[in-house]
Amino acid sequence: MRNIAFIISYDGTDFHGFQRQREDFTVQQAIEDALFKITGEEINVHGCGRTDAGVHALNYLLSFKTNSTIPAERFPMAVNSVISDGVYVKKAWEADDEFHGRFSVTRKTYVYRINNGEFNPFLRNYTWHYKYPLDAEKMQQAAKALVGTHDFNCFMASGGQVESTVRTMFNADVTRNGDIVEVSLTADGFLYNMVRIITGTLVYVGGGKADVGDIKKIIDSKDRTKAGITAPPQGLFMKSVEFDDGKGSGN
Amino acid sequence: MRNIAFIISYDGTDFHGFQRQREDFTVQQAIEDALFKITGEEINVHGCGRTDAGVHALNYLLSFKTNSTIPAERFPMAVNSVISDGVYVKKAWEADDEFHGRFSVTRKTYVYRINNGEFNPFLRNYTWHYKYPLDAEKMQQAAKALVGTHDFNCFMASGGQVESTVRTMFNADVTRNGDIVEVSLTADGFLYNMVRIITGTLVYVGGGKADVGDIKKIIDSKDRTKAGITAPPQGLFMKSVEFDDGKGSGN
Repeated sequence: MRNIAFIISYDGTDFHGFQRQREDFTVQQAIEDALFKITGEEINVHGCGRTDAGVHALNYLLSFKTNSTIPAERFPMAVNSVISDGVYVKKAWEADDEFHGRFSVTRKTYVYRINNGEFNPFLRNYTWHYKYPLDAEKMQQAAKALVGTHDFNCFMASGGQVESTVRTMFNADVTRNGDIVEVSLTADGFLYNMVRIITGTLVYVGGGKADVGDIKKIIDSKDRTKAGITAPPQGLFMKSVEFDDGKGSGN
Repeated sequence: MRNIAFIISYDGTDFHGFQRQREDFTVQQAIEDALFKITGEEINVHGCGRTDAGVHALNYLLSFKTNSTIPAERFPMAVNSVISDGVYVKKAWEADDEFHGRFSVTRKTYVYRINNGEFNPFLRNYTWHYKYPLDAEKMQQAAKALVGTHDFNCFMASGGQVESTVRTMFNADVTRNGDIVEVSLTADGFLYNMVRIITGTLVYVGGGKADVGDIKKIIDSKDRTKAGITAPPQGLFMKSVEFDDGKGSGN
């Protein structure tokens, strides 16, 4: 069988997350329904990660096996013409047999957007509205403690099932652009709700409820109850993925 | 009775337009339901214009009479705490008795946004995706013929009921910022679907289906069938209103 890879973007507002569910409409189901319409095959796609309801993706990787003879470069237009307009296939290519939307990923970058100004109905589904003042420079200093290889157990929501809670964080930055404060994290993998809990913790620092030095203590505690709240889903975007496609890595 | 004025913004995606309807949920109903909750009064608000389903507002003026003793400056927080988060009251003030959300308006500015690049799910409810190349400079030249006092009958959709189709256009500009082409129009009033039909006509010019000089001929024809298509609602934003509040004008 052929092995096809997609990069897609989606507005998570109207979906119950990526992963297929019995009752609710998800991005995976939208993609698989569209692939059924154009290939006649019941295809199971492998996404690069679960995302919760309301979470968005700017560049999300998935792969699937098919017997269809549709040229890879024709897939985007074919899928886009039949799928919900909240999902968009940006790119498709023929991948090596071993390539897998989840297991071939080497790094992921998530961004979390906070509206730190007046409420704005146009941003309500794409930011967390946090109206108290945030010191983004302090948040940036605090974020530096995340970089490196750590046991991030303190930033995992219950319900996450993993063999190890050790991950390597390559980049952690907080920037402000007007009212928008953006947390950007790149790691070899993320635990369940990790970006949202880190954001909730950095907001404690930015709002003066915690100190820059507290992040290291929280990590060392390995205790979820020491970390901050879980920021709401609608501010979270999967921004990009890097992967090894057997021909060198790409993104 | 007191006379209160509001400036509100709303994301029109989830509303069937501004004006109250028997069956469908509208912005007017959202506002009136919220005012009932906080004042106990069945209030009828006077909006500065109808907007169709899917059309947005950045600064929309309305006024209403009330016996409530709530200070004007407290209304935004009170309404915002009970209303759908697609609507936001930005400002409220005590207006003169004669002030009226519709009749006191002297000028309105609408903008229409076109995504002239690749489809983007995050822009789908806030732009018209027009994928063929548009020459925004030609559109800008063509728009200049709109400025002045004209019979704009050619740009009115059937269903508009007005005594006169003469309006004065103060400004008409087309600008490009990356993939986004924006049409901005300021007039003393607009006919039904006027901005959307003007946009559809300017797109003919930008795409080479009509010449810059055709706009004057279309206006002179007073014939709707000579003008372009009606651009879809989701690219349209009421941007601002100017009004005479008896104390000089404001916006």
